[in-house]
Amino acid sequence: MTELSVSILSADLANLAAETADSMVCGADMVHFDVMDGHFVPNITYGAPVLKCLKKAVPEAFYDVHLMISDPARYAQDFAAAGANLINFHIEAVPNHVGQTIAAVRETGCLVGLTISPSTPPQAVFPYLDELDLVLVMGVEPGFGGQKFIPTTVSRVAAIKAECNRRGVSPRIEVDGGINTETASLCAQAGASVLVMGSAFFKAQDRAALAKQVRAL
Amino acid sequence: MTELSVSILSADLANLAAETADSMVCGADMVHFDVMDGHFVPNITYGAPVLKCLKKAVPEAFYDVHLMISDPARYAQDFAAAGANLINFHIEAVPNHVGQTIAAVRETGCLVGLTISPSTPPQAVFPYLDELDLVLVMGVEPGFGGQKFIPTTVSRVAAIKAECNRRGVSPRIEVDGGINTETASLCAQAGASVLVMGSAFFKAQDRAALAKQVRAL
Repeated sequence: MTELSVSILSADLANLAAETADSMVCGADMVHFDVMDGHFVPNITYGAPVLKCLKKAVPEAFYDVHLMISDPARYAQDFAAAGANLINFHIEAVPNHVGQTIAAVRETGCLVGLTISPSTPPQAVFPYLDELDLVLVMGVEPGFGGQKFIPTTVSRVAAIKAECNRRGVSPRIEVDGGINTETASLCAQAGASVLVMGSAFFKAQDRAALAKQVRAL
Repeated sequence: MTELSVSILSADLANLAAETADSMVCGADMVHFDVMDGHFVPNITYGAPVLKCLKKAVPEAFYDVHLMISDPARYAQDFAAAGANLINFHIEAVPNHVGQTIAAVRETGCLVGLTISPSTPPQAVFPYLDELDLVLVMGVEPGFGGQKFIPTTVSRVAAIKAECNRRGVSPRIEVDGGINTETASLCAQAGASVLVMGSAFFKAQDRAALAKQVRAL
């Protein structure tokens, strides 16, 4: 069984409450909330004030926040207070203080996820596997929705899964970017247990059937 | 007559389409869209993907975009493409290339607004008055909604208005931050023709009556 985290960046952002509630009804396990600051990545999406309103509108959802920002430790508490359940940050944003940033996120009470972009070797997360609730492996360059899956993502997931097994630890492994039923299956076989779907989910004719299919992988 | 620009940062951000449509029905002239990048100001709000969805949902609104970001020229085209009608940027973000940034915004086809924070003397905008459609004077420090109006804002508006009169130019003068019926009246008397209301508007028991009152100033 895998979990489905729906990326609302591909939803109708003028009607987030309805889109999120519908995602839950259709069987999503989590809401993937992509925060971009226009510095770490060349796009600005949304931040804590939007999450706060969404949490109020749909309190039952699990909010899987993905910080694509330069200074995640500075803003982690804002997102926790706004309703985040899990906070992912990029190792590339804080290459010299990964441990401190894990501690800063842990301090907020949220689950902690460490994220790697396609250009970062999977081995970069190995030193931190004992401290993490989740490793988020990007299937595309971060910054925009609707991109095509990078095939080497599958072997990257497998390398992290193998190291987890060797160490006897079991953080969730999540994949974000370019996920459809086909790439979802490949990632699940490689060891991913959380799959992020954006465009594929929100453009699907039958969201519930798609969610059921992905969660059965 | 003044124009009312409603700051949707104080609206229910999980239901932006409905909040914006209601603002238009209640008589707002513009929608003030506060973009923060977590670098120029210590908050991250929303960006072009949200504006794009909102424009699609409420195409008849005039979108008064206020960029509180470090590199406005880099993102101006994104906001224009997403549906901005007017783009305001901060002089403090680009102190050494104000003219080039005005030109970059002008190039997008949007109206151009130049913004000053409370710590910047009003004289800073004087060299650019001939090139602007609007001068936006902050009534509070940029970064968050719901702050208290800084009284010296009124004399800052008056100084800009006097210089416009002296030069025979007439950009709109807009005030943003801490505006309620009382401060709106003071700003209008000093020469402001566009007033931004956030909390005061969205928490009002009768938004239409409030809009009517402000627009009659």
